[in-house]
Amino acid sequence: MNDTLRIIPLGGAGEVGKNMTLFEAGETAIAVDCGLMFPKSDMLGIDLVIPDISYLMEAPDYLKGIFLTHGHEDHIGALPYILRQLEAPLYATRLTRGLIEVKLREAKLLDTTEIHTIAPGDRIAVGPFTVEFFHVCHSIPDSVGMAINTPQGLVIYTGEYKFDYTPVHGRLTDYAALAEYGKRGVLALMADSTNSERPGYTPSERTVSEAFERVFGQAKGRIIVSTCASNISRVQQVIDCALHHNRRLGVVGRSMVANVGMARKLGYLSVPDDMLLRAEELDTVPPSQVAIVCTGTQGEPTSALVRMANQEHRQVRIQYGDTVILSATPIPGNEELVHRTLDNLFRLGAAVYYHRLMPVHVSGHASQEEQKMMISLTQPRYFIPIGGEYRHLVLNGQLATNLGIPEENVFVVENGQVIEFDDEGARLGQRVEGGHVLIDGLGIGDVGEVVLRDRHLLSRDGFVVVVVALDEATGDLIEGPDIVSRGFVYMRSAEDLIDEAKSLVIDVLTNGHRDTASNLIRDTLAEFLYQQTRRRPMIFPVVLEV
Amino acid sequence: MNDTLRIIPLGGAGEVGKNMTLFEAGETAIAVDCGLMFPKSDMLGIDLVIPDISYLMEAPDYLKGIFLTHGHEDHIGALPYILRQLEAPLYATRLTRGLIEVKLREAKLLDTTEIHTIAPGDRIAVGPFTVEFFHVCHSIPDSVGMAINTPQGLVIYTGEYKFDYTPVHGRLTDYAALAEYGKRGVLALMADSTNSERPGYTPSERTVSEAFERVFGQAKGRIIVSTCASNISRVQQVIDCALHHNRRLGVVGRSMVANVGMARKLGYLSVPDDMLLRAEELDTVPPSQVAIVCTGTQGEPTSALVRMANQEHRQVRIQYGDTVILSATPIPGNEELVHRTLDNLFRLGAAVYYHRLMPVHVSGHASQEEQKMMISLTQPRYFIPIGGEYRHLVLNGQLATNLGIPEENVFVVENGQVIEFDDEGARLGQRVEGGHVLIDGLGIGDVGEVVLRDRHLLSRDGFVVVVVALDEATGDLIEGPDIVSRGFVYMRSAEDLIDEAKSLVIDVLTNGHRDTASNLIRDTLAEFLYQQTRRRPMIFPVVLEV
Repeated sequence: MNDTLRIIPLGGAGEVGKNMTLFEAGETAIAVDCGLMFPKSDMLGIDLVIPDISYLMEAPDYLKGIFLTHGHEDHIGALPYILRQLEAPLYATRLTRGLIEVKLREAKLLDTTEIHTIAPGDRIAVGPFTVEFFHVCHSIPDSVGMAINTPQGLVIYTGEYKFDYTPVHGRLTDYAALAEYGKRGVLALMADSTNSERPGYTPSERTVSEAFERVFGQAKGRIIVSTCASNISRVQQVIDCALHHNRRLGVVGRSMVANVGMARKLGYLSVPDDMLLRAEELDTVPPSQVAIVCTGTQGEPTSALVRMANQEHRQVRIQYGDTVILSATPIPGNEELVHRTLDNLFRLGAAVYYHRLMPVHVSGHASQEEQKMMISLTQPRYFIPIGGEYRHLVLNGQLATNLGIPEENVFVVENGQVIEFDDEGARLGQRVEGGHVLIDGLGIGDVGEVVLRDRHLLSRDGFVVVVVALDEATGDLIEGPDIVSRGFVYMRSAEDLIDEAKSLVIDVLTNGHRDTASNLIRDTLAEFLYQQTRRRPMIFPVVLEV
Repeated sequence: MNDTLRIIPLGGAGEVGKNMTLFEAGETAIAVDCGLMFPKSDMLGIDLVIPDISYLMEAPDYLKGIFLTHGHEDHIGALPYILRQLEAPLYATRLTRGLIEVKLREAKLLDTTEIHTIAPGDRIAVGPFTVEFFHVCHSIPDSVGMAINTPQGLVIYTGEYKFDYTPVHGRLTDYAALAEYGKRGVLALMADSTNSERPGYTPSERTVSEAFERVFGQAKGRIIVSTCASNISRVQQVIDCALHHNRRLGVVGRSMVANVGMARKLGYLSVPDDMLLRAEELDTVPPSQVAIVCTGTQGEPTSALVRMANQEHRQVRIQYGDTVILSATPIPGNEELVHRTLDNLFRLGAAVYYHRLMPVHVSGHASQEEQKMMISLTQPRYFIPIGGEYRHLVLNGQLATNLGIPEENVFVVENGQVIEFDDEGARLGQRVEGGHVLIDGLGIGDVGEVVLRDRHLLSRDGFVVVVVALDEATGDLIEGPDIVSRGFVYMRSAEDLIDEAKSLVIDVLTNGHRDTASNLIRDTLAEFLYQQTRRRPMIFPVVLEV
């Protein structure tokens, strides 16, 4: 009898099985990916969201390796946090490794971390697992999926992929390998579900180059292209187009500069030395000879593009004649910020192109027909949709059942849900702690429901603190009431309201019982302030006895 | 020499010329629409946003009428607020009037407001203006555009429109009237720009009926359709489809019940009496014979659909076999709430259809080809794009210049920007107060930048209030420090941090000068707490001298 295989998706903030997935057999565990999520809009004040690994921490020695599919934040960004809690060797392709090393160096974890460079075709044996890598096309080069040989059979983990016939970096998603796994026999397919709402095929990256060509062909002034700093292929497309139109290239934005530098060093970006503009040259070269690639696709307030749109960027002032390309789509929740940035660019007189107007961006994820191809190539016995929000998983699962996989062999699960495979088949196991942990400043996980609820209340109606000093012996009011309030009313024009509130507090202290003064003050003020304003600030009485 | 005509768009929260527009000549002003906006996500705790009419209030007697294009909130919703500040007769079509009356009755303003029912073809003379009305198709019946005869010529205000060849309520946008205005000679066209990013034509409402038919044809259990409560035509589509499939109809959600009742009374909804289900029947009739129309398209936390998705609805519990149709698209900013609702419905086992999967919703606004048709029919001398965010106006303006209107005759403006027309032509006038006013509870305009900034800071890192009582004579610490904090750290597990903070305050009081104690406490704590947590709560020292 073989060891039971246990698969557990971890992490997420809405999405399932995207950031980290555990594979366990016997006393060995391996992880695929270790990413972070950006906080949802109701996670007030939170900086980042990482997978909850408390289950893993029950037996941290079991973890024998972390295998990374590609270099996006939501797949590698949690490494600096997780590697502070446990040690494990990393396995990553060359570019992914480059991006990881930047992070670990900053976190002072590079020297203590064992990293192995892998490539498509490699096989890595770890305990009862042997992991094979196959190339996939995605919006960052050097992405891989994994074929994981387990005691129960072969599990295919697609990573994030699309079937692009004309990718920028030339290499196709490895049909042959996938077909070969299918022939070998696949126990389970774990497949990216991001675009399972989308019929048809995701357009090729080449369509973006065609759109760039049209814009570059018309533009007379400067051309500014904003894209995700990790989208190295997109940067190459800008470079190629700029070269073709005799424009030199400015690289603007901290992470863009870092990634372009690293990708050049590793040979993932091909750009002639004399093409690059130094920051101080951005203003001196004629606009018709300048292209700029920069950050800011999500309307992030401190990003290069947003600073430009607000006329706050030191080197680049947008003016009539400039052309701006936003080569990305807003992540849900960022629409308002992105729209505001676009509006401001239009206000400054720029010609602005974005995905609604022109195909200057394509998704890096498979659409429905590609998802069907993945299932058809690999012919899995079980299907586990991952890498999407719940509805995406359901829809991807429906594709699989439409292709003949029995409904009971499709596992649509939440993070922390164990799926067990043994000689008798597959089933849901128990659930473990496998959600997410909030990071706020230095705090990892200390901000939870209580603090978030308070922040929410404060953000709606602010707070009121009432301070009084009573005579310890007599209970008489000696000093106060002082009132401190923010976020409730504009204090300078609310003097009458505050004075009335103070009188009320004095009444309460005069007539009420001293032991219950705090509660009485709170209740009376809450009622009074609600009647006056229809707002419900948080109210905190402080009663000092002196 | 004729009176100068002045046109001034007011209101908005990002959008220009959507909520209210003033037309002035001599000592007469008329307004078109009087709507509200829902707050943007950075307007923390704000309930509603209404137009700033402080300019109008400089001479409130000038206003001789408010003309309403249609019954959506963003066109009539500010009436209860504005009519408290000034009096003016209202002019509205029958259904729009019905919706207005519901509001004014609630606000106890109905008896004191003069309302006139108008219909397409009517002409209303007010001072130097004569307003003619023409029918337009939109996502609510009884919508009109206006042809406003002014001392300077004819101004066409499209209202919100589309050219639908097969509208649900049967009546087309009035091509003949528009063409006739064009023949008469149009000074200026003010045209809806909402969809100016969209090429082609907006699909007909009929495509929605076709999608409903497909879903109703397959569904075996209950069918629940969520749509905007004011979208009376869409409700009629649900009714027609339900009738066709022998299903009775439940109406769920406060505003849906109110609007359906009102629309039936006025004859805008055709539904047999015995078709309607009472609330208590929703559970007793077999699921295959039930259709429900309800609110909740934007994921509003207290709406019917969201309560159902959270298993908190009293009458309707979603179960496997139910079919849910979300017949709307998320307003930007609401995506997360809508997605969460969809995910929860999927979790409960419902079959869920929404615009990404099936054309169960179409826009009520003209796309580019229709926008071109509007310009071509009316042949205006000047073009003023309205009813969109800034980029939409620019794009609509570009359509106009592409059709031959000189660039200098296209006015892309912000709210509060006066456009003047006289015998010598048109030009930008000065800017007046014409933005928006925030409503929070009973407060109209009292919450501004300061309070919003405080709410923002509080929502990020919370606050800390430190209270000490000092001996008035000696300056010695008598009582405290007491610390009140919310939204900063989870207080129950932060005892050490708070104790250290208290010690620091004692140090400051012991060593520092009494007059500067407050500032010293604030600065010392800010530094200490940031070092410890990398968070920046708002800090307020309260020093009582007793």
